Amino acid sequence: MSIAVFYAPNAKDSSYLSEEESFHAIRVLRLRVGETIHLLDGRGSKFSTNIAALEGKKVAFGPLEVVESEPAPAYSIHLYVAPTKQMERMEWMVEKCGEFGIHGIHFFASKNSERKEIKLQRLEKTAISALKQSKNLYLPEITGLHTFKEIADKEGGEKLFAFISNPPVSVLMKTAAKNKEYHVIVGPEGDFTPEESDILSKNNWKPFSLGKSILRTETAGIAVCLGLHILNAD
Amino acid sequence: MSIAVFYAPNAKDSSYLSEEESFHAIRVLRLRVGETIHLLDGRGSKFSTNIAALEGKKVAFGPLEVVESEPAPAYSIHLYVAPTKQMERMEWMVEKCGEFGIHGIHFFASKNSERKEIKLQRLEKTAISALKQSKNLYLPEITGLHTFKEIADKEGGEKLFAFISNPPVSVLMKTAAKNKEYHVIVGPEGDFTPEESDILSKNNWKPFSLGKSILRTETAGIAVCLGLHILNAD
Repeated sequence: MSIAVFYAPNAKDSSYLSEEESFHAIRVLRLRVGETIHLLDGRGSKFSTNIAALEGKKVAFGPLEVVESEPAPAYSIHLYVAPTKQMERMEWMVEKCGEFGIHGIHFFASKNSERKEIKLQRLEKTAISALKQSKNLYLPEITGLHTFKEIADKEGGEKLFAFISNPPVSVLMKTAAKNKEYHVIVGPEGDFTPEESDILSKNNWKPFSLGKSILRTETAGIAVCLGLHILNAD
Repeated sequence: MSIAVFYAPNAKDSSYLSEEESFHAIRVLRLRVGETIHLLDGRGSKFSTNIAALEGKKVAFGPLEVVESEPAPAYSIHLYVAPTKQMERMEWMVEKCGEFGIHGIHFFASKNSERKEIKLQRLEKTAISALKQSKNLYLPEITGLHTFKEIADKEGGEKLFAFISNPPVSVLMKTAAKNKEYHVIVGPEGDFTPEESDILSKNNWKPFSLGKSILRTETAGIAVCLGLHILNAD
């Protein structure tokens, strides 16, 4: 049987699994004292350790041994998304981007947004489970709900936004340079209002197209994430 | 309001919408005689016509006028997938590949397959709805469940299969050439058995990798589809 993997963001500073991960270890997997487990800190490291003690509802783990560690990659991807009405579609996007690898997913409300609030905790759980499943080492930061202005005002990195309306703009693969800190905005299904896309352009966000198919919001988010990985692959 | 779009594979030979599309036109959208509608034949054409008559449960439409037509692209994508246990994941994959554009999705059973039967009708409906939503003009053919042997024995086109196991193989973007008829196999989550991957290699299927992340089956299918579109974009 493969070794059970747990998410332990403070692995280096603590010797306990979170309550949720402890529950999973004790109640679901029924692990015992002495068993080897793996910990992911979501910041580039994977550790091997063992279960030192079961203290009530908490799992205490022993000394850590690094089994895998990965320096921060030469590029990073931050996605800014106006969430869809159906939360399920956003969960799916978080899962898929998490599998491909992503550094941040940030939600914002725009004029045409279909949803004005967001359940971050549920999305974080999805991201953690994608992290474990994919064997990636970096957990994306998930934030929101931001205002459109907070996002538009952002400074630094390669700033891009997916634009559906006419006139047609260059595709992502030709608009983005390699090895950048990418900040990419995917608008709502009704697209940005002319005022919003004006504000983005004035704030030095570059428009790009995802091709002639009309993609749903979550599909556009996945396409951006995978496209940037492909662009940066050697 | 935008013009309602219907799928009518036999638009040129018939003057009736299918029962299902008729139901949608009459009962859901409550369209009336004389209203303009668009028809997609799923084979590269979009027509404009109008509702000529409502005959019981069927919509009769008038003469067709081509509003958009697209020659078959220089490349085509056929995906062969060992379906996951949860059908929902396969529906998602069909929807997303349908949005990106794909020519065929073919399901097969392999040794490690989690599912030995498949509901084609439901997947076809998903593909039709993705066609309408994305404004693509080609509907993928969806077939299955095939045997592993039927797929392995296939001749012609660029034959590739996603391979997880060691030794690592070259990534898709470097393995596939441009402008081909692609036939790409994505195996089950437990990967192919050594016997199966031997058979594929002997039948001239080339292995490729989707990178170091472990992708779920449906994510791998989407990555293949989008990756090949990116490879072939000018």
